[in-house]
Amino acid sequence: HVQELVEPLHPANIADLFELLDSDRRRRLAAALGPRLDGDVLAEMNDWVRDDLIDALAPHEVADLATQLDTDDAVAIIEDLEAEEQRAVLRAMPADDRAAIEAALSYPEESAGRLMQRELIAVPEHWTVGQIIDYLRENPELTTDFWEVFVVDPGHRPVGALKLSWILRTPRWVPVADAMQREQTLIPVDMDQEEVALRFQKYALISAAVVDSSGRLVGMITVDDVVHIIQEEAGEDITRLSGAGDGDINRPFLETVKTRQTWLIVNLGTALLASGVVSLFQDTISRLVALAVLMPIVASMGGNAGTQTMAVAVRALATNQLTQSNTIRTITRELRIAIANGFTLGVLIGLGVYIIYREPELSGVIAAAMVINNLIAGLSGILVPLTLDRLKVDPAVSSAVFVTMMTDIMGFFSFLGLATLVGLPG
Amino acid sequence: HVQELVEPLHPANIADLFELLDSDRRRRLAAALGPRLDGDVLAEMNDWVRDDLIDALAPHEVADLATQLDTDDAVAIIEDLEAEEQRAVLRAMPADDRAAIEAALSYPEESAGRLMQRELIAVPEHWTVGQIIDYLRENPELTTDFWEVFVVDPGHRPVGALKLSWILRTPRWVPVADAMQREQTLIPVDMDQEEVALRFQKYALISAAVVDSSGRLVGMITVDDVVHIIQEEAGEDITRLSGAGDGDINRPFLETVKTRQTWLIVNLGTALLASGVVSLFQDTISRLVALAVLMPIVASMGGNAGTQTMAVAVRALATNQLTQSNTIRTITRELRIAIANGFTLGVLIGLGVYIIYREPELSGVIAAAMVINNLIAGLSGILVPLTLDRLKVDPAVSSAVFVTMMTDIMGFFSFLGLATLVGLPG
Ligand SMILES: [Mg+2]
Ligand SMILES: [Mg+2]
Ligand SMILES: [Mg+2]
Ligand SMILES: [Mg+2]
Ligand SMILES: [Mg+2]
Ligand SMILES: [Mg+2]
Ligand SMILES: [Mg+2]
Ligand SMILES: [Mg+2]
Ligand SMILES: [Mg+2]
Ligand SMILES: [Mg+2]
Ligand SMILES: [Mg+2]
Ligand SMILES: [Mg+2]
Ligand SMILES: [Mg+2]
Repeated sequence: HVQELVEPLHPANIADLFELLDSDRRRRLAAALGPRLDGDVLAEMNDWVRDDLIDALAPHEVADLATQLDTDDAVAIIEDLEAEEQRAVLRAMPADDRAAIEAALSYPEESAGRLMQRELIAVPEHWTVGQIIDYLRENPELTTDFWEVFVVDPGHRPVGALKLSWILRTPRWVPVADAMQREQTLIPVDMDQEEVALRFQKYALISAAVVDSSGRLVGMITVDDVVHIIQEEAGEDITRLSGAGDGDINRPFLETVKTRQTWLIVNLGTALLASGVVSLFQDTISRLVALAVLMPIVASMGGNAGTQTMAVAVRALATNQLTQSNTIRTITRELRIAIANGFTLGVLIGLGVYIIYREPELSGVIAAAMVINNLIAGLSGILVPLTLDRLKVDPAVSSAVFVTMMTDIMGFFSFLGLATLVGLPG
Repeated sequence: HVQELVEPLHPANIADLFELLDSDRRRRLAAALGPRLDGDVLAEMNDWVRDDLIDALAPHEVADLATQLDTDDAVAIIEDLEAEEQRAVLRAMPADDRAAIEAALSYPEESAGRLMQRELIAVPEHWTVGQIIDYLRENPELTTDFWEVFVVDPGHRPVGALKLSWILRTPRWVPVADAMQREQTLIPVDMDQEEVALRFQKYALISAAVVDSSGRLVGMITVDDVVHIIQEEAGEDITRLSGAGDGDINRPFLETVKTRQTWLIVNLGTALLASGVVSLFQDTISRLVALAVLMPIVASMGGNAGTQTMAVAVRALATNQLTQSNTIRTITRELRIAIANGFTLGVLIGLGVYIIYREPELSGVIAAAMVINNLIAGLSGILVPLTLDRLKVDPAVSSAVFVTMMTDIMGFFSFLGLATLVGLPG
């Protein structure tokens, strides 16, 4: 009955069904679907939901599902399994599929080697266009999902590529060597997936040849998988910047709590530091409680301004827009923005405080602290991500902690310090 | 000389060169490049950098560049011009290009109608595969960038599609009606680009037919443009969540200051509100200054926890993962996480405060406030984005203001309120 209901659905829609259900119902749906829960459905599923489902399957069942897929999709399923289960699944697979997957797993996680599929069309340079067409028509076991044909030399090194539209528009007798495009973007097998995605975007690629260290063609990456990478990496940056790690509404409860708590505890440390700064000025505060009322404003505004700059910087770094040659220009730009914002906000808060308290010194102090903390915010908002990036640390992961630590500490310090300096309580 | 240097470069690399230079040098490079600054280079350029360059060109020069491009790329350039300049450029274009662009501009911004190109291959159902191949070979004026052929009925409504790999692998005599895939994803011309991108991702599309309200084929969207949309929309969400609007390191100074200041001023308002809450407890604080020292910790931890939940929720909404059917489950999940985090952090801060101050009441109060504010954080972190989404407001744009307003106000209120309630200063 359930099998009939899902009959007309695309595998991606069946995968969505699973994502909408809770864990218990998922397993009941899986049981009801039987063979309609095929490799394609698994490949389309959210990673966490798939992990949850696969836990309930026997290794040989997982092996059967993976065998239906291209290497890239099979690897995506198998790479997330625990070591022991992974071995059991691989043992249950046919020798050739197993070899292909083990080869892929030998490359680093999130590298081109994991993303690529082995199934591709490669032809020698000495053929004609007509020979390619005949070869494709006469070999039904070849893959059907390809958008270009790679031309290789006798050492299996790519020397050119032919978009399918060109093959269709070129007379049969034309030699491949004359019809092919010699310039193509080759992807080294150990390139990080994020860099792969940026190449695809920059050169508007639909597929690309992957080569090993000796330049031999070992696989092909297609744009549909790159689209997933881009969504995934951008999503990561959003949740990481917000201290939620690789957050996802489908991630298991305990893992989620652990990731978030780690960051909250780090933040507790920086909050204690900031609170330590406030405690240095207890005396001043006890003589003028208005300082306690106003100090959170300076810290919070600095945090907001710093976060603005940081987000723009992290994004520019992630998309290769911020490079050596425009670093100085970008830092200068952010400082100018920080000064402009600092003055506007300083004037606004100065006026506001004067209207409420009628104390010119208090309003001068908060205005000055606002200018100073905006400058700190702009500086740390751009320098923290840049420094982390130079140190090869993902700026999305830890920029926020450092930036808000700076703006909290300096916000309290500049406001309470200036107040003490001008002898405000008097 | 410069023209020789850039000779071997891909248009995307020439565009990158422009992005790295400041405004003055950009114009000098443009002058030096002459005709090498062609439509393709412009199409690859960052929007802000392109706007800056185009300002220096005469309308007929812009018209010439746009005429070299497919409609989608031409529209991308022309839609950003000011109304008057836009009219001047359109007037300088050949009648047919002009009509195509005016048609595209008649659709809403960021809709499929703006993204699509008119250049596509459509064939009647009664042809054979061989006829398609002959048609493609004999009409050199047809576009060369296509990945599938659309099959249309006599009313020009799509009835199927043929991937190029299928055309190549099917014998010439096979009727199109037998070879084509009848199920295909049709994109309505007024669909938002974000939804278009999600469709492409979900169904792993390379290209898709765009249809008007009467179901007629009016254009084609290709995945290379969708890749840009995904990057752009994800980038927007990152910078919007951080209060930097559509921030970009190439955005002009004044516009950037204006956008960021707007959000900072809104935040100033909420900071004043929070400060107003503190002022209700001046009395309590003046009797126990330690409260002023500790209160920022409660507010800041709440802000961090709220931001974690909010980021995960905003991302899930943007990718269609969070829908009616799993809303309740997701809210429950976030509340459980909030309770778990609240208790851990409450215990930690309670112990810490006891070690420093040796005041059981004070440490009990801060622990309780921490639990309460984490709950507020979790609740607002999930409910604010959900509510904004229901109200058809982009949750990325204004969630952060509301969430941190709640956690600041409730952080101060719960901590200082509880302290007053238990008569702490005594
Ligand atoms: Mg899905
Ligand atoms: Mg297989
Ligand atoms: Mg994975
Ligand atoms: Mg990565
Ligand atoms: Mg694939
Ligand atoms: Mg990343
Ligand atoms: Mg570029
Ligand atoms: Mg044209
Ligand atoms: Mg645009
Ligand atoms: Mg949008
Ligand atoms: Mg295009
Ligand atoms: Mg936009
Ligand atoms: Mg959006």
